[in-house]
Formats: sequence, C-alpha cells, structure tokens
Amino acid sequence: MKADIISIGDELLKGHRINTNAPFIARALGAIGIPVERIVTCSDDPEAISRSIVSSLASADLVLVTGGLGPTRDDRTRKVVQELLGRELLFFPDAYERIVEIFRRRGREVSGEMRDQAMVIEGSLPVPNTKGTAPGMIIDCGVRYGNSHLVLMPGVPVEMEAMMNLSVIPFFAPKSGRFILHTPIMTMGIGESQLAGMIVDVEDGLPSATTLSYLPHAAGVSLMVSTMGSEKEAVDEENRRVVDAIVSKAGRFIYAVSDASLEEVVVRRLLERRLTVAVAESCTGGLLSSRLTDVPGSSGCFLQGMVTYSNRAKESLLGVSPETLESFGAVSEPVALEMARGCLERSGADLAVATTGIAGPGGGSAEKPVGMLCLAVASRSADGSIKVEASTLSMHGDRRQNKIRFSEAALRALLELLR
Amino acid sequence: MKADIISIGDELLKGHRINTNAPFIARALGAIGIPVERIVTCSDDPEAISRSIVSSLASADLVLVTGGLGPTRDDRTRKVVQELLGRELLFFPDAYERIVEIFRRRGREVSGEMRDQAMVIEGSLPVPNTKGTAPGMIIDCGVRYGNSHLVLMPGVPVEMEAMMNLSVIPFFAPKSGRFILHTPIMTMGIGESQLAGMIVDVEDGLPSATTLSYLPHAAGVSLMVSTMGSEKEAVDEENRRVVDAIVSKAGRFIYAVSDASLEEVVVRRLLERRLTVAVAESCTGGLLSSRLTDVPGSSGCFLQGMVTYSNRAKESLLGVSPETLESFGAVSEPVALEMARGCLERSGADLAVATTGIAGPGGGSAEKPVGMLCLAVASRSADGSIKVEASTLSMHGDRRQNKIRFSEAALRALLELLR
Repeated sequence: MKADIISIGDELLKGHRINTNAPFIARALGAIGIPVERIVTCSDDPEAISRSIVSSLASADLVLVTGGLGPTRDDRTRKVVQELLGRELLFFPDAYERIVEIFRRRGREVSGEMRDQAMVIEGSLPVPNTKGTAPGMIIDCGVRYGNSHLVLMPGVPVEMEAMMNLSVIPFFAPKSGRFILHTPIMTMGIGESQLAGMIVDVEDGLPSATTLSYLPHAAGVSLMVSTMGSEKEAVDEENRRVVDAIVSKAGRFIYAVSDASLEEVVVRRLLERRLTVAVAESCTGGLLSSRLTDVPGSSGCFLQGMVTYSNRAKESLLGVSPETLESFGAVSEPVALEMARGCLERSGADLAVATTGIAGPGGGSAEKPVGMLCLAVASRSADGSIKVEASTLSMHGDRRQNKIRFSEAALRALLELLR
Repeated sequence: MKADIISIGDELLKGHRINTNAPFIARALGAIGIPVERIVTCSDDPEAISRSIVSSLASADLVLVTGGLGPTRDDRTRKVVQELLGRELLFFPDAYERIVEIFRRRGREVSGEMRDQAMVIEGSLPVPNTKGTAPGMIIDCGVRYGNSHLVLMPGVPVEMEAMMNLSVIPFFAPKSGRFILHTPIMTMGIGESQLAGMIVDVEDGLPSATTLSYLPHAAGVSLMVSTMGSEKEAVDEENRRVVDAIVSKAGRFIYAVSDASLEEVVVRRLLERRLTVAVAESCTGGLLSSRLTDVPGSSGCFLQGMVTYSNRAKESLLGVSPETLESFGAVSEPVALEMARGCLERSGADLAVATTGIAGPGGGSAEKPVGMLCLAVASRSADGSIKVEASTLSMHGDRRQNKIRFSEAALRALLELLR
C-alpha cells in the first residue's frame, strides 16, 4: 500500500503558509507501515485539483487530500471529487447537528451555508470533525480507479489531525499489513557530528530493516530509529535492540526516549519528586513560564513566574540590589544569582531558575553581544540553606530563536538539578 | 512565466522534516511576478526524481529543484538531469577553489569527492554557493523541453536562500515582465464565514487580476489580496481599491493592513503613545508576556509580567484578597479585576491586563468549563483614578490552542484600550 498526499491552497503556493499538514500525515501513515511516495501542493483552481487527484489515483493506493472543505468560495475540493466520480451529495445529519450545536454554543445564527457543509459524497464514509464543522470523507473510488481510496480532510491543522488520529489511521491500519516502529531519542547539549561519532559502531552494525535519522532542530539534535517489517514482535524487538545500543553509548546526553519535550520531562520529574518551581525571567520574557505551563498538570509544580524586564521590576519583585545592577549591569552572573535567590525566597518554591541576557536585535555591545545569556539556578539543601549557581552561554540566532534557545538552556539547567 | 518547485528528500516524505524551502522560493518568485503552479515533494530515488522533473518541464516554464547536490550517497539530482538532457559534466574551477579554501579553513583534507562536487552540467550557468560547497546551476533545457529553464540548488536552506537572492532572482526578474502585489489584511474577533458574509459584495465584484484568500489561524482569520499585471502602477492601484473596499466593509474587525502580528501592533501603539504596560497572567501562563516581548523594542513599553499560577502568588504578588478567591474562585471576574488593579498599582504601569481561566484538559466543571476565560484591563484616568473592566469569554480548543486564544483576547483588549 502506497500513499500520495495532496495539499490544496493558493496560500501554500504563494509561500504565505508553510505546509505542516503533509508531514503530520506522512508521520501518521509511516507509523502504520504506509510509505508516502509524493506530496503535491496545488492551487484552489478546480482543474488543478482534478488533475492532481487523477494523477495520484493512477499510481497510489491511497490519496489523502487536505484543504477546500470549508464554507468560503475558495473551497472547492468536494465539488471536484463529486464530478470526477460522478456521484451525488448526501445530507449527513450527524454533521449538521454538530454544526448547529457549535453555532448555538457560540451564540451565532445557523445559516443556509451550514446545511451545505453537512453534505457528503455518496458512497463515502463520513469522518466526524471533532474540532470544527465540515466533516471529512473516506471514499472507495471504485473499479475505474483501481479501488484506490481517497481521503478528504479540511486544511485546518487541528481538525485534520483529530480526523487522522480518530478515524483515518484506525481505518487503514488493519489494511496495511506492515508495521513500522519509530522511536525518537531526544538529546541535549551535543552537536550532530559529535553524536554521530559517539554512536558510529551502532550505525555501522545497523540491521537491514532499521534506519537511523538525525533530526537537528532549534535547540539540539534528536534521533529517530525506524524499523519496518511484517511481524509486530520482531519489529519491536529489533527496534529496541538498536535503541538500547544508542542509549548505552550516548546516555548522558539523552533526556527522553519518546517524543517528550524538555518541559514535559522537567514537569514530570518535578511532580514525581513532589518539588515546586518558580522562575524569574528577563531575556526569555515569559517564554520559559509559558513552556512549563504548556504541560498539562504543571499547576501541580509551577508556583509562579516573574517577567522582570525593567530594572525596577528586578528590584521590587526579586530584591535584586541596585548596587549589583549598577556595578555589573542587568546582564551579568551576579544579577542572575540574585534573581534566582530572590525568586526562590519570595515564592517559597523548592527550585528556581533565572535568565538575563540580550535577545537582540538591539542592546548588544562588544563586551555583551546579542545572544549572551546569564543563567542561574537556586535550590534548597537538606539543612535549609540555599544553594545558587550561575553560568554564561552565547547563542547566535535572531530574537525569537535566541528566546527559544535561552529557554531551552534554562530547562536543561532545571533538569540537571533534578538528576 | 509559470514555475514548479520540486523538493527532493526521503526525510520530507517521512514527515521528519518540514519543507520550508518551497515557501521561501515561492515568496521570492511571487515578488518578481512569477506564480508557482505546483510544489512536488519526491523521494531520493533517481526514477522518482526523473519522473517529477519531466512532468514539471511539460507544463512549467521554470522548474526549481532543491536537494540532491551534496557529497553523500543519497544525492542524485545532478546525475539524473545530466542523463535526462544527454549532456556532459564540466569542471568548474571557481567552485573547486572555493571548496578547497573552505576545507583548508576547517582544517580538513581535500578528497577526490570534492573535485566531483565542482562539476557542473554542460551548457549550464553555474550558481556560486556562498554558504557551502556544491554549486547550483541554471540550465536552459533546449528545444526538446520548450526551452524551459531548470534551476538546481542544494537542500540546505541557508545555501539555497543565498543562491536565490544573489543569482536566481536577479537572473529571472528581467524575464518575468509581470508584477504581483500581495496585501495582507489582519482581522480579529470574527470567524471566516461571518467575515465572508460581510465582504460578499467586494468578492462578487473582484477585478479579474485580483484574488482574495482566507488564511484562518489559531486565533482568527486573515485575508490576502493579490493582484497581478504587467504595469506596476495599475497593479498597485487595483490592489489598493480592493483593500480599501474591504476596509470600508469590515474595518472594525481589522487591526492591520500589513503582515503585522497583534502584539506588534499593540507594542507599536504603546511606544507611539509613550505608555507602559504590565501583565498578570494565570491561565496564559507567561504566553502573553512572551508574545509582547517577542517584539523588538518592547523593552521600551513592557515593564513586567507576573505569572501567578497559585492562589498564594495571586495574593502575594498582586494583592488579590483571600476572601475574593474564597467567595468567587480563582477563575472569576472579581479575581480578574483585582489582578488587573494590583498589577497596575504595583508595577506603576499606565495599562495592565489580567487573565484567569481554565486552559484544560483538567480543571473544568459544569459551571466553569475548560476554555473559560475571565479577562480584565486596568488603566489610569486623567484624574489619576484607576478604571477597571472585566469580561468573560469561552474558547473551544485544546490546552495549547486555548492559551493562544486567551492571549489573543488579552492583546485585543489592550488594543481596544489604545483606540
């Protein structure tokens, strides 16, 4: 079974939007052993949509289409497919009830267009839209198209993702007959070539059904160990052997053998150890608090965050002394240390972390360039005394990248404290 | 002149990497009036590469290919094109000197493979690689392919981007003879179908050279008005007429006629009016502060943020009274009002905004469901007295979406105060 993905939308062709739907679908299909052969992006023009679908149905067993199912005029996919297959539209009452319900809840009037959105193509399996209005469809295209399947989904990522997880993947998984296991290995504090050198033996001895990919990202590099086969147990076993071998070689740089984010691991460790945390942020501007509070359940360990952008706020909220600010400047290890200590003392938390640095683009100097970060952590010893530590790092991105990397460094520092 | 983009790479088809090259190329071509008709992602397999290039050369005047020019085994593009066009490889001394120089600088030995990287296809215009080793190529494919042009570039984004900016765009701009103007219109507080209803007359009377796209995103919907033509002044004029018509119909929901984010507009207005802001966040968990501090120059108006997740933090940092918390619960308008007032008073800022709500997935009840947001703003009147206002909203996303929408609502409330 082989798949094509068709992403519809002028905004994608103009480069106004990045296509994140196609990689999501590709990963989901990969996990049930269905490889993707082509990803095609085409315009909202009905002829272009039709040509792309016909061309993909000729070579793929499964064609997944996103975009063009909403209520506005530039949404034309359903009509194109209807004409292509020569089928009628049928009213799908479940979808209509859901649409009416959503509109009622939001206090909006139900218009005629809403009824139109609840129509699905004859002979299709309607896919409920748990995050929006227009339903998706799974369509057996009949003998004329070699019984290939067509899946129509909205282009809105959350709606499409829910449909993939709840309906599309469960429908096609039993039909695939192959298993793929992808195991992500998340590392921190190590570069790609250094990591490659460390696990060279594992890579040289990789079994034939397993591949190893490097996935560099803003804050480091991750590995993906992928094993494919027709027997689930053999696939699991081979995959685990390779993962174990990598962990034994590079374990101290690995923070998770799953797709957990660094903040998820930090929050999980804090909750397990019943510890609380508070943060004091200058250059990360709230991003560190936001990442920690992105994790469900973080209210069980995250007490408070203070975004002290101005010197006055550093003094009044954290008790940083005006003398330290004057002598060393706001971006300095002494200030970071006082921020972390003040944050710990005033919040009553068990751990605290503080950031002060220069995110850019302005504010840099020869001595303190853009990308400079002073980071401090504070914790309580068994005897109740407070221990503080500071370090200075430098990053080389734009403002937004620097904020991300600064927050990543702060999360890493917290994780080190929790080891 | 119409273009296709072909992105080569198994990692793209597996969904392990998001294709950011294609949108970059599409935007660069759009700016010189060359529309992109299709973006195709295919595997590293030579046959798949060949099929994709032949198919695109049949319909496009210009085909841009990224990926498959490096020294590793899975890079096969050049060989495929060479065979397709029946041409020789020629040694390109400039590229070789550059490669030798780079390797010398990095202290690595120059191997035979390096000489191979400096070979370009006969009859091509070599494109210098200012950020890496393998040169790109601009190839006139000859009469057999209707004199369509093929552009080969590496898949590494920085290398490709430099080639586009320094060589490819300057080469094709004089050949295009057309202009495109894209004007984004950013709206807030309105859904896609409601907005479409409001501007239905404009859409019905759209001039033939102008298109209108809806770009829904987590927090609302934006519009893109695109006009194409051969005379720059006529293009500008027609585009402005359509934009003006939309603004006159939907003006009160429009916060920018540019690609500015809501936080950029808020920060700009604050700086223009020399006002300062402080924020008190519960359910947005730092995201609101982080969005405001994403804007360069925000340190000129953003004083501080307080992420008061626990009740204790709401009391100690913002002065919310234990009685109010007890009587109404942390998620309530009275608590939001006290948070906003406390934030204003303690920070000394001119404006303050406070959020308290339930981001989910846990913590909801029948009375206070997941997605509920209590929002308050505080400002100083001319007589020095403090004015506070609260409102309650409900969102329907997952935790991360709710945080984004909560923060969007808070930014909107700030913008309303600044009108």
